[in-house]
Amino acid sequence: MKINIATLFPDMCETVLNTSIIGRARKEGLFEVKTYNIRDYTLNKQKNVDDRPYGGGPGMVMMTQPIYDCVKAIEHDSGEDTFVIFTTARGKTFNQDLAKELLKKPNITIVCGHYEGFDERIIEEIGDMEISVGDFVLTGGELPALIITDAVCRMIPGVLSSEEGFMQESHFNGLLEHAQYTRPYDWHGMTVPDILLSGDHGKIADYKFKDALERTKAKRPDLYEKYMQNDINVEK
Amino acid sequence: MKINIATLFPDMCETVLNTSIIGRARKEGLFEVKTYNIRDYTLNKQKNVDDRPYGGGPGMVMMTQPIYDCVKAIEHDSGEDTFVIFTTARGKTFNQDLAKELLKKPNITIVCGHYEGFDERIIEEIGDMEISVGDFVLTGGELPALIITDAVCRMIPGVLSSEEGFMQESHFNGLLEHAQYTRPYDWHGMTVPDILLSGDHGKIADYKFKDALERTKAKRPDLYEKYMQNDINVEK
Repeated sequence: MKINIATLFPDMCETVLNTSIIGRARKEGLFEVKTYNIRDYTLNKQKNVDDRPYGGGPGMVMMTQPIYDCVKAIEHDSGEDTFVIFTTARGKTFNQDLAKELLKKPNITIVCGHYEGFDERIIEEIGDMEISVGDFVLTGGELPALIITDAVCRMIPGVLSSEEGFMQESHFNGLLEHAQYTRPYDWHGMTVPDILLSGDHGKIADYKFKDALERTKAKRPDLYEKYMQNDINVEK
Repeated sequence: MKINIATLFPDMCETVLNTSIIGRARKEGLFEVKTYNIRDYTLNKQKNVDDRPYGGGPGMVMMTQPIYDCVKAIEHDSGEDTFVIFTTARGKTFNQDLAKELLKKPNITIVCGHYEGFDERIIEEIGDMEISVGDFVLTGGELPALIITDAVCRMIPGVLSSEEGFMQESHFNGLLEHAQYTRPYDWHGMTVPDILLSGDHGKIADYKFKDALERTKAKRPDLYEKYMQNDINVEK
């Protein structure tokens, strides 16, 4: 799998992508991530990537040409088509299902927005998908692009060690995770639930499942309803 | 305003926080962000921050003590109480309303999770809020912490120049943003809607509003319904 990030801040993205689990997996060649500086593809002398919006209003709009030429260069480098994602507020809301969908694509390019957004025509011309990581406003599309990259790449086999194994985690089976405890047994007068020390694997599994179910019902009734609905469907 | 980030990867966080608009505003002293390495507060020789979960299962759980001592050090440095946020999958979903709520707090600490999560007791003991940036799984809580920091800090007066003015942006009035266009007028045979070149400010404002309304209805019916409901309430 190859992910390309088209950005005005490639150095910042590189630092994040070279850190921790994703950095280690990248070094091991389990996937390829490449950053491209959109500014390198400007044709104007000032190396401007943005201009004033038609119709007035505050802010600047990212121009079509530098992004277009940057993505063409990415396709040339890759020797294959790339699935082009724009990070926009109106995009599809990113979630684990969408991450799994992206995991199937061999080559992805994420274009990071800045200023007031993109000239509409670049999205129409080369965009395959628009993604929003949530209903909040950020100074740029870099953090969303890095979130998408992290969520997708961590599912690639070998990226997580068995220690970091991802099957039991929240959002994988549709429930939030049960509470976790580690040593010491007694901390500030709070002790670990005794069942977890019983050594009875069946009872422990039951306890964890019930805890996950209760937590999901209390904190995220929407996920709980969805889970119960799916469960009923499976039984039919 | 002061934001503290308790993390295992302070250098990576610093790089992001020193970049672009947030980096500039930080240098200008418009707010303070400080990163703390949780590992500096371990009391064991190996400097471990995590241990195996009670009851078995894969992964490691972050221990109570290093986080507790790190947050106490933050409060000592700050000379005031800090509002402690844990980034967890079961937390409140982050959005613009929550960002505005956090903007009112003078001192915030965001604790970044790793591995399988936190020992439940540390959240019970010092947590004021749990936040999730979305329904997806990441390798760590750093990107969520940086997203929260970015969304909150960009609303501090002076952080955005008037050029970057934030009042018209998506999620501020509850609608997605209208389409934007910049030069050239004709790009790949696609031209800018003529109304935007008319110079008639009233008509342009009408056009933008209708475009925003249509886009929201098509892409995010949930936001559209909410907006229409609020609109009706206002008229009453």
